[in-house]
Parts: sequence; structure tokens; C-alpha cells
Amino acid sequence: MIKYLFYPESIAIIGATPKENKVGYSILNNLKDFKGKIYPINPKYSEILGYKCYKSILDVDDDIDLAVIVTPNVVVPNVLEECGKKGVKAVVIITAGFSEVGNYELENKIKEIAKKYNITVVGPNCLGIINTSNNLNASFSNIYPPKGNVAIISQSGAVLNAILDICPLLNIGVSKVVSLGNNIMELEGKLLEYLNNDNETKLIAIYLEGLKDKNFKEIAKKVNKPIIVLKSGKSEVGKKAAKSHTGSLAGEYRVYKALFKQLNFIIAETFEELIDLIHIFSTQPTLKSNNIAIITNAGGFGVLAADYTEKYNLKLPNFSEETVNKLKEVLPKTANISNPLDIIGDATPERYRKVIEILSKDKNIDAFLVILTPQKMTKPLEVAKEIVDLNIKPLITSFVGGISIKGAKSYLRKNGYPSYITPENGVKALSYLYKYSKKIEDDNYYYKVKEEFLKITDENKNIIRELLKDVNEYKAKKLLSIYNIPVPKGYLARSEEEAEFYAKKFDKCVMKIVSPEILHKSDIGGVIINPENPREAYRTLIERAKGKKIEGVLVEEYIDGEKVEVIVGSKKDDLGYTVMVGLGGIFVEVLKDISLGVLPISKNYAINMIKELKSYKILEGYRGQKKKDINFIAETLIKIGVIAEINNIKEIEINPLFVFDHCGIVGDARIII
Amino acid sequence: MIKYLFYPESIAIIGATPKENKVGYSILNNLKDFKGKIYPINPKYSEILGYKCYKSILDVDDDIDLAVIVTPNVVVPNVLEECGKKGVKAVVIITAGFSEVGNYELENKIKEIAKKYNITVVGPNCLGIINTSNNLNASFSNIYPPKGNVAIISQSGAVLNAILDICPLLNIGVSKVVSLGNNIMELEGKLLEYLNNDNETKLIAIYLEGLKDKNFKEIAKKVNKPIIVLKSGKSEVGKKAAKSHTGSLAGEYRVYKALFKQLNFIIAETFEELIDLIHIFSTQPTLKSNNIAIITNAGGFGVLAADYTEKYNLKLPNFSEETVNKLKEVLPKTANISNPLDIIGDATPERYRKVIEILSKDKNIDAFLVILTPQKMTKPLEVAKEIVDLNIKPLITSFVGGISIKGAKSYLRKNGYPSYITPENGVKALSYLYKYSKKIEDDNYYYKVKEEFLKITDENKNIIRELLKDVNEYKAKKLLSIYNIPVPKGYLARSEEEAEFYAKKFDKCVMKIVSPEILHKSDIGGVIINPENPREAYRTLIERAKGKKIEGVLVEEYIDGEKVEVIVGSKKDDLGYTVMVGLGGIFVEVLKDISLGVLPISKNYAINMIKELKSYKILEGYRGQKKKDINFIAETLIKIGVIAEINNIKEIEINPLFVFDHCGIVGDARIII
Repeated sequence: MIKYLFYPESIAIIGATPKENKVGYSILNNLKDFKGKIYPINPKYSEILGYKCYKSILDVDDDIDLAVIVTPNVVVPNVLEECGKKGVKAVVIITAGFSEVGNYELENKIKEIAKKYNITVVGPNCLGIINTSNNLNASFSNIYPPKGNVAIISQSGAVLNAILDICPLLNIGVSKVVSLGNNIMELEGKLLEYLNNDNETKLIAIYLEGLKDKNFKEIAKKVNKPIIVLKSGKSEVGKKAAKSHTGSLAGEYRVYKALFKQLNFIIAETFEELIDLIHIFSTQPTLKSNNIAIITNAGGFGVLAADYTEKYNLKLPNFSEETVNKLKEVLPKTANISNPLDIIGDATPERYRKVIEILSKDKNIDAFLVILTPQKMTKPLEVAKEIVDLNIKPLITSFVGGISIKGAKSYLRKNGYPSYITPENGVKALSYLYKYSKKIEDDNYYYKVKEEFLKITDENKNIIRELLKDVNEYKAKKLLSIYNIPVPKGYLARSEEEAEFYAKKFDKCVMKIVSPEILHKSDIGGVIINPENPREAYRTLIERAKGKKIEGVLVEEYIDGEKVEVIVGSKKDDLGYTVMVGLGGIFVEVLKDISLGVLPISKNYAINMIKELKSYKILEGYRGQKKKDINFIAETLIKIGVIAEINNIKEIEINPLFVFDHCGIVGDARIII
Repeated sequence: MIKYLFYPESIAIIGATPKENKVGYSILNNLKDFKGKIYPINPKYSEILGYKCYKSILDVDDDIDLAVIVTPNVVVPNVLEECGKKGVKAVVIITAGFSEVGNYELENKIKEIAKKYNITVVGPNCLGIINTSNNLNASFSNIYPPKGNVAIISQSGAVLNAILDICPLLNIGVSKVVSLGNNIMELEGKLLEYLNNDNETKLIAIYLEGLKDKNFKEIAKKVNKPIIVLKSGKSEVGKKAAKSHTGSLAGEYRVYKALFKQLNFIIAETFEELIDLIHIFSTQPTLKSNNIAIITNAGGFGVLAADYTEKYNLKLPNFSEETVNKLKEVLPKTANISNPLDIIGDATPERYRKVIEILSKDKNIDAFLVILTPQKMTKPLEVAKEIVDLNIKPLITSFVGGISIKGAKSYLRKNGYPSYITPENGVKALSYLYKYSKKIEDDNYYYKVKEEFLKITDENKNIIRELLKDVNEYKAKKLLSIYNIPVPKGYLARSEEEAEFYAKKFDKCVMKIVSPEILHKSDIGGVIINPENPREAYRTLIERAKGKKIEGVLVEEYIDGEKVEVIVGSKKDDLGYTVMVGLGGIFVEVLKDISLGVLPISKNYAINMIKELKSYKILEGYRGQKKKDINFIAETLIKIGVIAEINNIKEIEINPLFVFDHCGIVGDARIII
């Protein structure tokens, strides 16, 4: 149980040693402020650092809640077995030398032992854990962070160490820390669940290379605290590097990002952003709106910050008339009253205070960015003190400079106000806070579709089973139509005569070659629109596909009307079934303009995915065309995801899906088993 | 002359005062280490800070090279007049209260006086100037920066002050500093010219809100030192803010950016980037290639850095066999030898040293990023000392952490090695250094075209004059054809009969309504392709344009073949004539995917503009199509720019320009006078 990791009453340190440069010493030494019972285990010693030392954990005449293992790697299985026999609840394996260096066998051994005895194991190959609420430092880090409300989970010990090293400098307060290491028990989800119920934790920060926990999504969905995630292995070259680093499959960043977005995680793109975001989320309440005020004693920085508000979707509303009048009373006559508000280079602490106070009463404004640069008359520390004393939030600061403002920045941070190194960083952080604050509402459309699709008749189930044996465009469309996705009327012609017969059924038709060996029909001229002579067209198509396996010619009604071509698809991925939407042709193929989601997604989310496309404007009605049916696209997207999921289809794609102002219809479809 | 700003032998401080909280005191006090002669001027005092004080500058019995004015604004014209009479060469006006508060009249007055006496004036409304090579601090800044090779020009005094405040903390060494203020003498270009010849300056950093100097481009082109520029007023809201801040028209950021790119300026997008780039450019040589090695004691940060190399166009080549063998000798067995190179958490200073030494001999590698995080065994300061001692460049570092690494970072920076707060920042900085290193080669295509176009016959000149009086599509094409830009054959029909007569001249034709009141012909159905009955088509077009002024129907040959539609245009802007290129239709209209240039541009640069388009892949041959004629697009782009320039055309646009695999032809053209 996770509880015993953080709140043990007794701890055994297996591999403890009095040699000061060894990890087994650091761990024991770091535990000196812990109030519970400490049992060093090492057959070579009878006493270490004043604690009685035991030959084996089995010799200890007491229950042991938590064991920390720092022995050589080959000994770990034996030691863990003993922990099991002793009834230890949780174990942190610091020792390295397992899967990360290719030693899978040894890792599997300890995995089995842990399972046998039902022990919660953190690691191996990790830095350890910390709980500041009971002074539990079961890690070999040199740094013990200040107490606070940020929980940190890291897949890399070194990245964790860097964060811990920054914490005292930037006054980031920490509640709990877990170094995952090789994470044999796939604890990501369970840790989130635990931290969500932890009163000391307000915010969870995660450094991740790849997810192991298959239930992560379901668990993470239920967490209602902000989760900030920095994922490495974003690029091909980065993924290669990540693989050689922790042995984890980094997976496609785009899919991870899709998942994180759905979970309303706050995605840090760089290490700096991770730190910047921890700052704001650990100290500030959420934003009611994106209406902010910028107050500055340096016009230039006001402009730079304003530039960023536009980029990051924040607004700088005009102040109310009442506010303007009040500001006029406290500002010099030369001050230009607008937002960003330049309170001029000679601004005193009192002027800062009065201005913030006045603006805090303006209903148009919901958050503040206070900028300061050291100028001749500036008193940075005094301004910081006024800000802290006012106690108005959400409020962040950016004191820009070096030596003159160090004290002021430190004071602000110590008292719960972030101070960013540039106004741009501040604006970006505020925008993330705002984005987090407006979570997309869930709905149960996906579940309704799934329930409905699972209820289809046995007859249809048999048909689908047959169709999926050897699928082509004709069969793919048949399958889609069973699930009530609109497809054109069409017939498979196997002779000139049939082609002519079917063609006559339509005012206007299109004829397409059907062959499992031809993926891109247009490349070989495999599509003929509205042929004058269907027999001739049939012969032409057969001729063009010569040498390939031919299953016939599809004769279909021609789809006319003002339409946009969309692509929707679903694919089985490590993280589950993904769904993809984009605009047809060059948009997907050249510009890679797509949105991804990981099932399940709500209809609201699907609509949001579509709206996030760069090419979305085209769906809104481009050059006087009517707005297209976004709802239809969103529903079709979820439907084909469900179809793929319940039929265990590897990949399904509708390309194009013709979309009209009302409803739409499948143009072509492809299924890969 | 600029020289007297930086190297005066005598300085008068007009408005000097013994009151410590006044600017007139700070200036005098800041000049105490200056070795030249100092003359305070103030009728109220006979002595200040031990200097004899004069009633007026005219009372000084010596030549005065530089005067610094800190009097109230209304007195400035008189004082400046006296400076003129005295023969002062250069003046810095610190005093505020001119155009920035709407006081244009007063500013114009001093402008005239400066002109009359031929005085070089910096300001008004500025922080002053600094020259560290002769201890000249003619500013009221609290901070005097360390001596070094970075020249700083800033349009905002407060932003400048922030930079100066950062300098000692980050060990950024400064050569010369100019606070431009309202910049009445439009000194941007002249200052660049001066600093380009200044031996103390290696690098010029500029904070800019808007350019005033009309000759800036011509002068800046000749500067061969790196110029880093941070421009504010990028967004609409930022531009509004900038306007109220310095009264300067911020102009369109995209046009500025185009200009900066052409000038091979290094464009900082944020204040943090400005500082990061100053660091690398002031200490590192240029990069021979984009092949870098990353060395790290933290795998996770190696991965994060690798992610960024892909994003920023740097490469992580494999090491040579020889290198790999040598590395094996100095690294632990568990180390994975790849790039990024993880030298493991227990890396000693010696290991860092040996690894860098080995890699510095690998021909595959041209630059280094050394990452360090504080771990149990890490000795940050010793690693820093080894790096400095090795003296290998280009090499940058990122020591990530807080309290444990402060000393090491400071040591590195003091000794000419940047240390970035995150590896991502380091990678980005290296990529800028690389980008700067590979300047695009100039050619004289633009000048040749201009020369040729200026030589057209008088007859053609007359025709053009007539055409430009009242231009429409037909006339625009005629004009283009005079300059040898290929246009379709076409005739303007003014009756059904004419339409039929002309249509018969072509195998396939297109008929278009010609009306100065119809901008988008397709919106009203003003284009008919290959009509069966030209008479009927003529009537239809006239009918559809009912109520508008109609000039006829253009009957043109229909352009067939495998083509891509491109847009090229030219427009008169504050900074000169801009040229624009993009792909037709949605690419420009919806995705805003365009490249801009400011004339003159070379053909190489024009080709580069095209290659930078997101949609460039389509021109390279999309879906098995042939590669399109990029050279033709580049030439047409420059040609229409020249046409606009020499005919003083406000705006000209070819949309579409049909481009084939060889050559191309105008589809439609529009000229606005």
C-alpha cells in the first residue's frame, strides 16, 4: 500500500553503511530527522550512526513497514524475499543495474517476488522518496526541499535532483517526492490516486519519459488537483536517447499530448516551463476569466508583455470609468491610463500599492501581472512588501533585472507570489492557469454509442465477421452502413454488363477499381467520374489495374453539392485507441494538420479537436460557403473509434468524409485488420 | 559626430545639482571615474561635488565636446542654443516631457536648434550613454556594467536599466551603451556604423519599438558584427501599448521581421532570449556546422536537449569509431555510448574533462553542450574549472539546479562560457549561432532587373503612364507583359460579336468580367471557362455584373497543364517596398502562410523565402507531380517589386500566378495606385 511508503512507523535500511561517500550512508543520514523507528541492516556492522545494526531484516524483533534497499544488484532478490517473509508493506529499491542496463532477468525476478508477497515497490534504479510532513527523507539526495504543497513524481533521478536543488532557491515548497526509476510496479496511477487524497498536496508535478501503467487514464481522470507534466522524448532523436536512458518506449509524443490534453493536464514544453508552472499553480487560485491587468514601471516591458497576451489568449480589457478616475488621482499627470498601465519610472511602493488596490476593485479585471524594473527611484523590496501585504490574488509578478531585485524576488516567492524572470514568462504562466480553469465539460456520447453498437443483431454481427475476413472499400462501406454511418449507394460490378446495369440506377455515378493491392486508386487512374460509357469505363479500369488482384469495380452514386473533404480515422496505439481528424488532401498530407484523441472522448472534446485544427476556418465557411456540420464530424469520429475498438480493428480511416452544411457521407473508407 | 558621444575630452552637465535624489546629481556622480574634464552648469551653485560650477556653458573657458542636459523641459531649447553657440559637438538630453507626452512643438524646437548648429543629439527622454573603455558613465543608471564586448542600444530607458542590472549578475561585459529615448536625430544607422568600427565592440544588442532612420537598411547591411534585436509591439494590442509609450509607430512586426532576417540580424522573440543570445554571441565563435555533441550526467536532460535539437535544426551525429573506442576507456561499462552522451550520475570532473577532450578531436563534432545536474557525487565548481581550463570552443553549458551550482555557473560565465538555466535554452542559443553563421549569399539580380526595367522605350513608358491612369485586369496584364512577365493572350470584348470573334481565336478560352468595382470576380460568377456559346456567356457575365461599372469582357486563352497557383505581390510600406509570396487560395487566405521581404532582395534570398513557406512541399512536387519552377517564382517576385518601386505603385498582386515545372504565366493581376 502506498500509505506505507509515506507514513511508515518503522524503516529498515538494507545495505546501510558507515562509509560516508556511499549511498547506504546518505540514506541513513538523511533519515536522522524522521521520528519513527530506524533499523540499519548490514551483516558487517553492529552499529551505524548510533543505531543498532542487524545482520538481516529477519533478525529485527519488530514489524517493519518500509524497507529501503541499497545493496548490490545481485543480492536484491534475496533481500526482497526476506522482506516478504518479514511482512514488509512497502519497499524502495535504490539499487541500479536492472533493465536500464539490459538486465531484464534480474528485474523480472524481483517483480515476481514483489507480486508473491504483495509488496508495494518503488524503483529499482531510483533516488528514493521524501515526505516533508513527517521529515521522511528516504532518498540519497543532498538537498531536502522546503515544506509545501507540491508533490513531485519523476522518472529520472537526476531531473528530480535538479528540481530539488532549485526548490530552496526559488522557495518552492514540496509535500511528497517519488523517484520512479524503472517503476516495475507501474505505480503512476496509484500514486496519483493517493496524492489526490493527500491533504498536504495541492499540485502534482510529473517528469515522464513513458507511461507504464495501463490504467493510468482511468485513474488520472478522477484526479481533481492540477497535474503538470513534462514529457521528454518528443522528437525522433529524443526518443532514441530516451530508450537508451531508461529502457522505456517513449511512444509518440503527439499521442501522449492528446491524452494529457484530454485529462486537462498542464503540459510543460520545457524544463523552465515546468518550474514556472509549479510556481503559479502552487500559489495562485484559478482564473475566473482571461481578463488581466498589467501594471509596470517600464513601458517597454509593458509592451513586450502585451505582445504575449495576444499570443497566449489573454485579454487586456479597458478599465471602468470609476477606476480611471481613481487612477488619475494617484498617478502623475503624464501617465497614460490604459492597460498595460505604465505607472512611470519613478513609481514608489505606495504608488504600486494604490494602483493595485484600485484595480482589484474593477470588475473588468480578474488577475494581475505586476512588472518592476530597477530604476533610479525604485525600491524593489518595499514594492514586494506592499504586494504581499495587499494579499490580492491571482497576482503574479515579474521583477526584471539582476542584482538590485534579488531580495525582492526572494521575498515575493517566500510569501506565495511568483516572480518571473521576464514578463513574457509571466504571461505564459497566467495563460496556462486560465486554460486549466476552463476544463471542457464531459458528456456520455461515447458510452451511448458503444452501448448501441454492442447491441446490433446477431445477423449483423455475422455479416461483420465475414466482412472483416478480407476487407476492401466496398466491404468497409458496408460495415460502416451497418453502424448507421451514411455511405453512398453502390454495387460491386464483376462484368461490363453489370457495370452498365448498375450505372443506369444513378443520374450520375462514379466507378472505382476494387483491389486489396491498390491503396491509392487515383495514382493509377482507378477512379472514373460519370462515365459516358460504363462498359468502356469498366474495361479501362480493369486494364489500368492489370497485374493486381482485382475484386471488381464499385459503381456508386456520385456525391454532389457544396462539401468539404475531411479525414477521420482510428488506430490502435500503446495508450489505447486513438482517433484522428483533419481536413482532406494537402492539409493532412503536406501540412500534417491533425487533431488526436485517445478513447474514450466526449463529444464536446471531439468538437474541440476539430476547432483546434489550423484549417478549421474552412469548415466555418470559407469564401461565402455555408458553415459545415461539425457535429456530424464529431459524431462520426467517435463512432469509428468505437467501431475499431469493439471489433479489434488495427486501423480504420474514412478519407474523404464528405461534409455538408447538414450531415455528410463517406467518400472512401479503408480498414486494416 | 558620434565620436564625441563616447570619447569626449570635456563634458558639461547642464542642470547638475548637489541634491542626492535628483538625476542631475546622479549624472555628475556617475562621471566621477571619468578622466576628462567635468564642468557642472547650474546658476544656483558655485561648486558641486568638488567641481567648480558655472552659471552657463558660455561661461566655461574651455572647449566642450559633450554636454549632458538634465534641466526642466521648457529650458532645454535655450540651453541647447547656448551649446550650439559654444560649439559643443554632441549632446545627451536626459530631460523628459517632449513628444512622448504629446509635446511635439517643444521637440521640434530642439530638433531645429540641433540642425542649425549641427550637434549630434541623443534623446531627449533617455537614460544617457556609457563607454566602459574610458569610464564614461553619462547616465543616471544606478548600475555600472562590467567591461566587455557587448554594445547595447535601447529605445527604452527602463528596459536598458534592466539589462544593465542583469549584466553584473550574469557577467555580461559591456563596451558601449546608448539610450535612444525619443531619438530626434534618427541615429540608429549612424550608431551601428560607428559601433561596427569600434574595436571594443564584438556584438550589438538592440531593443527597438520602431525604426526612425530611413537609411537604416542600407547602413545595417554593411555591418559585419552580429546584431541581436528584440522588437516589441509584435501584436495589435502590443502596438497600441507601444504607441502610448514612446509615441513611435510600431509598424507591422512581420515587415520588421522580414527586414531583420534579410539583414541577418539575430531576432530575439523574448527578453529572456535577448539575454541568452547576448551570452553566446559575446563569448563564442561562429559554428562551422550544425553537428553538435551533448554531454550530460543526467540522462533525462540529455533527452530533453535532444528533443530540442530536432526542433531547432541541430544535428547529433554519431561519434567516429576512434572516438567510441577512446570513450570506452574513460567511461564506466554501463555507459551507453551515443549522442547525447550520458556520462552517468557519478561523473567526476576528470571524466567530464576527458570526455570533452576526446570529443573535441572528433571531426564529426563542431560544438558542445555540456549539461550538469547536482547529484550525490557531483562537484559542479570543479567541473566548471576543468571546462574553462580546456579552452575548447564553441562550447556552452547548462548547469541545471539551484543552490548547489550557483558558484559554478558564475565561474563559467566569468570565464567566457555561457551557462543556461535549462538545456533547452542552450540548444536554442546554439541554433541561433549556427543560423547566423550561414548567411545567405547576395547576388545582384535585383539591380540588374531594375537597370533593365528603367531602360524601357519611351513609347512603352507612355503606354504605362496611360495604363496606370485607370487600371483593370486587362491593363494590369498589359503592363506586366511590357516588363516581359508572361501573360495569356487576351482581348477585351465590348459586344457579343467581339466576344464570339475573339473566342474563335483559341482552342479553349476563359471569359471574365472586367470591372473596377468587382474585386473578387468568382464571388459573382464573373468567370466562365470554355463557354460553348461565347455570345451567351457574354450576356450572362454582363447580367451578373448588373449595377456595376462594366468595362467589357476579357476573352483569354485557357491555361492548361499541371500547375500550382502562387500569389506574388508588392506593397509600399513604412520601411520601403515589401514583396510577398505564398501559395494560392486557402494557403494565403486561411492559413496566412506567406513570406515577406523588403526590397532590395537578392534572388538567393527570394528562393529562400519560397522555401520557408509551410506549403513549399507542394511546389516540390506533391503526389507524384513534377517539381515546380521556383526560380521563375523568385524572379517574378523581384520583378513585380521593381515594377511597383519604379512606377510608385501602392500595391500590385498577381493572384494566381500559374507555375509549371518550367516557367509559368499570370492568371490574374491587380494593381492599386
